[in-house]
Amino acid sequence: MSKHEIPYKIYLEESELPTAWYNLRADMKNKPAPLLNPATHQPMGFEDLRPVFCDELIKQELDNTTPYFDIPGEILDFYKMYRPSPLIHAEFLEKALGTPAKIYYKFEGNNTSGSHKLNSAIAQAYYAKKQGLKGVTTETGAGQWGTALSMACSFFDLDCKVYMVKVSYEQKPFRREVMRTYGASVTPSPSETTVVGRKILEAHPGTSGSLGCAISEAVEVATGLPGYRYVLGSVLNQVLLHQSVIGLETQAALEKYDIHPDIIIGCAGGGSNLGGLISPFMRDKILGKADYRIIAVEPASCPSFTRGKYAYDYCDTGMVCPLSKMYTLGSNFIPSANHAGGLRYHGMSSVLSQLYDDGLMEARAVEQTSVFQAAELFARVEGTLPAPESSHAIRAAIDEALKCKETGEAKTIVFGLTGTGYFDMTAYQKFNDGAMTDYIPTDEELQASFAQLPKVD
Amino acid sequence: MSKHEIPYKIYLEESELPTAWYNLRADMKNKPAPLLNPATHQPMGFEDLRPVFCDELIKQELDNTTPYFDIPGEILDFYKMYRPSPLIHAEFLEKALGTPAKIYYKFEGNNTSGSHKLNSAIAQAYYAKKQGLKGVTTETGAGQWGTALSMACSFFDLDCKVYMVKVSYEQKPFRREVMRTYGASVTPSPSETTVVGRKILEAHPGTSGSLGCAISEAVEVATGLPGYRYVLGSVLNQVLLHQSVIGLETQAALEKYDIHPDIIIGCAGGGSNLGGLISPFMRDKILGKADYRIIAVEPASCPSFTRGKYAYDYCDTGMVCPLSKMYTLGSNFIPSANHAGGLRYHGMSSVLSQLYDDGLMEARAVEQTSVFQAAELFARVEGTLPAPESSHAIRAAIDEALKCKETGEAKTIVFGLTGTGYFDMTAYQKFNDGAMTDYIPTDEELQASFAQLPKVD
Repeated sequence: MSKHEIPYKIYLEESELPTAWYNLRADMKNKPAPLLNPATHQPMGFEDLRPVFCDELIKQELDNTTPYFDIPGEILDFYKMYRPSPLIHAEFLEKALGTPAKIYYKFEGNNTSGSHKLNSAIAQAYYAKKQGLKGVTTETGAGQWGTALSMACSFFDLDCKVYMVKVSYEQKPFRREVMRTYGASVTPSPSETTVVGRKILEAHPGTSGSLGCAISEAVEVATGLPGYRYVLGSVLNQVLLHQSVIGLETQAALEKYDIHPDIIIGCAGGGSNLGGLISPFMRDKILGKADYRIIAVEPASCPSFTRGKYAYDYCDTGMVCPLSKMYTLGSNFIPSANHAGGLRYHGMSSVLSQLYDDGLMEARAVEQTSVFQAAELFARVEGTLPAPESSHAIRAAIDEALKCKETGEAKTIVFGLTGTGYFDMTAYQKFNDGAMTDYIPTDEELQASFAQLPKVD
Repeated sequence: MSKHEIPYKIYLEESELPTAWYNLRADMKNKPAPLLNPATHQPMGFEDLRPVFCDELIKQELDNTTPYFDIPGEILDFYKMYRPSPLIHAEFLEKALGTPAKIYYKFEGNNTSGSHKLNSAIAQAYYAKKQGLKGVTTETGAGQWGTALSMACSFFDLDCKVYMVKVSYEQKPFRREVMRTYGASVTPSPSETTVVGRKILEAHPGTSGSLGCAISEAVEVATGLPGYRYVLGSVLNQVLLHQSVIGLETQAALEKYDIHPDIIIGCAGGGSNLGGLISPFMRDKILGKADYRIIAVEPASCPSFTRGKYAYDYCDTGMVCPLSKMYTLGSNFIPSANHAGGLRYHGMSSVLSQLYDDGLMEARAVEQTSVFQAAELFARVEGTLPAPESSHAIRAAIDEALKCKETGEAKTIVFGLTGTGYFDMTAYQKFNDGAMTDYIPTDEELQASFAQLPKVD
């Protein structure tokens, strides 16, 4: 096949799978701010983090200088079950839009977790196993991370305790059953099983839960049980490191077919997908080798980038985790229950926050109904029914392609399709019934939330 | 890559996609028996079938001599969205079993319909569109066929009316929403919208429905509405023809890597997957070019091959469809409601029935709990959570691999993994809770059902 005969689905060979993760922090001029001890406000070091995280993962978390980390062979073995993932030329979408733009999407949904989350889950499970641990604890919102971690723990025969945000636990019983099939235990959060859960239930008896609260519970359990550590599916530097496999594969596939992107788009909740997708492209941008527009897309109901503050904040509701400097809506912010799917976290990866603050990327917020309109169109013409999270990126990609239609420019747009929506049919049903709504927080609500940010000089 | 470096996932190039379907009937020494008019018992010809089926599909249905049918370009365009599907070397399963056997599976689940059903759905929608029809009607059991047809109709802008077996409609609301997202209308069957539905409801007020009954309703609607025809996802010769793409790709992938199968295994409900998977292998077996053990696996609760009669029978409960000669449990047979997933049809493809009667393939029935045990093991080691239907084939593949472990033989086993179980979590929940049961029909029940077979000399 000649370099210019682009197939609909670009699959790299298994032998072309990246063998090292890329650490974007090594090339950032302004490094992300360090984690701080929530009591002393001093930067946290290796020893401070050991009760919570696996040793090897702490090293990855704190390392702002090593550009590449070799991917261990056992992780590569697991990756090859579902990677390299395809980069797909969305020619049916282009045709439906009548745009001169070229649209490609990196599709991470062809695995049972249904999303990119597996890329970091298997890495974190591997290091936990290597350290001789018995198990790990975590939280999950929409359920993709919990599913991914259950699969990873099952593969390495580790115990897996998942705290699932109550609203998702109730709306997504099937996600829970997938996790159970892989041997995980799943507890709705807030729960009576932890001190912090009981405290939150006492203060807010009817709460439907939040990621921040589930994190607090999972951390409490991990630090109290011998042989357990806590793992997290987004926000952390280590997660972005593991997820760089998405961007590295995307870049390799584009280069293989001599495709030059103008715009790179990803949805953003805590930043795991976006940070992974853009990492090698951002490197080239920082090093002056190429220029790209990079666009983060977030829900208007949880607008960390576009309406948040860049400040130190608690990562969790219970305030047991380190402080992180990030674009945040305040650790007590809980998006409206009518918001579907993930992208519910109050803060944003500190790496991405720094890049955004440095003007290296754009951000935009989109409303839920317009997101599902984009999802429906995409499903009908491209075949794949997308996750609500991923559909934020579809919305922005369609909007950019329609701008090209107006201007006549044939730009090349690459976006991340993080996953499938097969466990999100309750949200689709609302959309199909014409009953979908959205709630956008008022300025007053955000100000009240910001007033509770910790004071860090 | 040298011929002997077998990757974990064997992906053919898009340029290696088969461009013609293979019609096994052309090479069968004993042809499958013709469809008969249910009133006159005379063989049905082109004109007899025109009120029900599209013209081009009738030609395919009746053609026992043409070995290859070119796949139209618009269907190939759609195929490339999700084909060629991977042939996967189940090395993690081999390791878990400690078997010297080599196990490969052809995975048809990487598309939103979640199964191989899309291969025929897009073909049938294409011919309906080409004939200038407004829409099609069909029935669906587990929901995979209905989903596939909804996707196909959406792609060609055809109306799609689905009659969904009531028990599935109620247990799988999310399947219904996927179909609605692709623009289909979904009606639980039996319904008040048809004469035959009202008759069945009157006779059996509490019925949870059956495929045979939903077929009758869909056919009634198709023949009564101008511009509509009926389409079916299994059993028919045309469906096996379209599904031959599975077997052709499998054979091409095996040849590319010089792999020689000893045993080929597929689950069997109406025969769409099994018939497609085995077609080119059966050709070689009939022509004496190669020898394979070919094994059909069916549920013990719906054992058409292993306990059915080879006789002419009605294809539907309402007796409006042609008579077909097949292994059948009787058109009034309804498997117990505790049977999960598909494979609920009372009869079997007449092509496969003839091959089985000619001793060219084996059949075995497996019980539900052992099927889910196989599914759980497969999910945990190979990553993918399989459909209950597909898991029948996994069960048999594991059993054959364990026999190899006993004998020390390194046989090569190929099985069809028809789809994913993401919409079957109600059944998995029962299994996870230890509450799964099965019901195997008694000899008396089967005899009573056989007594109602039509008398055809």
